[in-house]
Amino acid sequence: MAAIDRSEAVSTSAGTGARRARVLTGFRPTGPLHVGHWFGNIQNMLALQRERDAFFFIADWHALTTDYEDTSRLQENVRGLVLDWLAAGIDPDAATLYLQSHVPEVAELALLLGMLTPISWLERVPSFKERLRDLAEREIANYGYLGYPVLQTADIAIVHGELVPVGEDQLPHLELSREIVRRFNRLYGDVLVEPRALLSETPLVPGTDGRKMSKSLGNEIGLRDAPDQIRAKVSRMVTDPQKVRLGDPGRPEVCPVFALHRRFSEDILAETDAGCRSGELPCVRCKANLADRMVVQLAPFRERREELEALPGTAEEILAKGSEKVRPIVEETMAAVRDGMNLG
Amino acid sequence: MAAIDRSEAVSTSAGTGARRARVLTGFRPTGPLHVGHWFGNIQNMLALQRERDAFFFIADWHALTTDYEDTSRLQENVRGLVLDWLAAGIDPDAATLYLQSHVPEVAELALLLGMLTPISWLERVPSFKERLRDLAEREIANYGYLGYPVLQTADIAIVHGELVPVGEDQLPHLELSREIVRRFNRLYGDVLVEPRALLSETPLVPGTDGRKMSKSLGNEIGLRDAPDQIRAKVSRMVTDPQKVRLGDPGRPEVCPVFALHRRFSEDILAETDAGCRSGELPCVRCKANLADRMVVQLAPFRERREELEALPGTAEEILAKGSEKVRPIVEETMAAVRDGMNLG
Repeated sequence: MAAIDRSEAVSTSAGTGARRARVLTGFRPTGPLHVGHWFGNIQNMLALQRERDAFFFIADWHALTTDYEDTSRLQENVRGLVLDWLAAGIDPDAATLYLQSHVPEVAELALLLGMLTPISWLERVPSFKERLRDLAEREIANYGYLGYPVLQTADIAIVHGELVPVGEDQLPHLELSREIVRRFNRLYGDVLVEPRALLSETPLVPGTDGRKMSKSLGNEIGLRDAPDQIRAKVSRMVTDPQKVRLGDPGRPEVCPVFALHRRFSEDILAETDAGCRSGELPCVRCKANLADRMVVQLAPFRERREELEALPGTAEEILAKGSEKVRPIVEETMAAVRDGMNLG
Repeated sequence: MAAIDRSEAVSTSAGTGARRARVLTGFRPTGPLHVGHWFGNIQNMLALQRERDAFFFIADWHALTTDYEDTSRLQENVRGLVLDWLAAGIDPDAATLYLQSHVPEVAELALLLGMLTPISWLERVPSFKERLRDLAEREIANYGYLGYPVLQTADIAIVHGELVPVGEDQLPHLELSREIVRRFNRLYGDVLVEPRALLSETPLVPGTDGRKMSKSLGNEIGLRDAPDQIRAKVSRMVTDPQKVRLGDPGRPEVCPVFALHRRFSEDILAETDAGCRSGELPCVRCKANLADRMVVQLAPFRERREELEALPGTAEEILAKGSEKVRPIVEETMAAVRDGMNLG
């Protein structure tokens, strides 16, 4: 595998050409969105749907690579994610939203791409062994898990995805997709679009324990959390460990509570910083200030989300509409793929 | 993986119950059938279509696991194999003949089965490393090649295959399929049928060089070979290496020509054996006797095959009809699979 060519990466600010480039991004339906998603994925998606030909899909098959043993909440998570997106302002008229398994040809393309993907390329992806270690308690050293990047390549290629938003750490995955596409095109003609990275910054939003907010760590504040839940979670947040008692001077730059203030508390940011440093602002007060603002600023999401919850069939309708939109693209791709490979 | 339980294997002579068991067997479309196939696969298939609910499919996707680099003859090979089957007496009204890639759900099921198939199970299949070594000149250490048994399991399970004809050497493959099906059923309910082995003897038919007849060794006598080609190939066959000159006594039991006499020359078998042992029968004469009989006995196949060749669209029609026959079975299986896994 060639080294990553950073010159191919495209910055998020670029792209004011006549035709809007197709950008594709997928989400595993692992549960309700939280504050970490809000400032990362969701803000990126809102920008993408304004500026690009945005395709957002829910990767239900990908969820099986690590969570195949218990799929009891899968349907509920898919439905919930669509409604979370809508409540957050993702607009099904501006972007194409669809469910991976509604496009079964993705499996066919993945099968075909797998024929020409060396096992060694897959084992070399940095996250492969890392996740095996992190999730050691689950039996995930499975064929499907190893093939994650192949399936991802099929997701991208089947809709002619040109740009894929990635963080620095995911560049090797995208480079692998590019390698697979190049190999396919070399063997069977210029059929698939070679995707490029759209380098996206994902701000580090800490969870209640100070580590990156993540459902799997159980440190998340959900976008749908009730005001009481938000207040309770914020009140239990870790703070600067050197600020032990009232009056001790604190260091906002190491405090997870202050990191969230940066996101929610523009109005009192300077005084919070000063009060922390001087020791005059008690942590209890500081946390209450944050929780007040989170409750207020997340209220519109929560309300829209409740409204959507009350409309049965909304998620299903959106996904059905999305499937229809991608169908002709998928059929065109697969006809060219089968033709290129001399399949009937 | 558990050890192979031979008690589960079913002998070919069994099965006179009320309902005929569904037996499934697939062929890679690698080129015209030869005499080795005639006495192996074809005779087995003719028996299966009489005695069982026989499903015969052409595994075009499987062909890509080792021959992905050049697919230029794939379509022609698929079409040719259907016509070879018909000419050999395979009856599309008695058996269901279809093309693997006409059932794209096979790829979906393979993807899903892959999620729960440990990589270690796949690496442990005896033929995995063997073939990697045999085909070292081709780059086949690919993801699709590793997943061959997963795709095979999907082929079987998607049509509720109950019996799979296998030789002793393929028992580990089938045992792996059984393991995968059991694991699926344990996780998602009793959805898939666990296939059993139908132990089939494949007689060893030697090629012109004395090794097992095989297209990849270039030692085959094709079922469609013209009389002149048959005579030329037989005349060049190796014989007992100890019978060097005319008059030397020969050993029929080690002579590949005699091995073919056993298949084609019932009328002169005893005198051929005696003449060889005494040294009175010259090899040239012995070979001419064999070639005469092969030409006569293969003539009906060759004629039917030419007739079929002259009817355009025959293969396509047969395969389309087969797809239609398997479609409802496939849809039923996939509905149960998706339901069991909580996919939409």
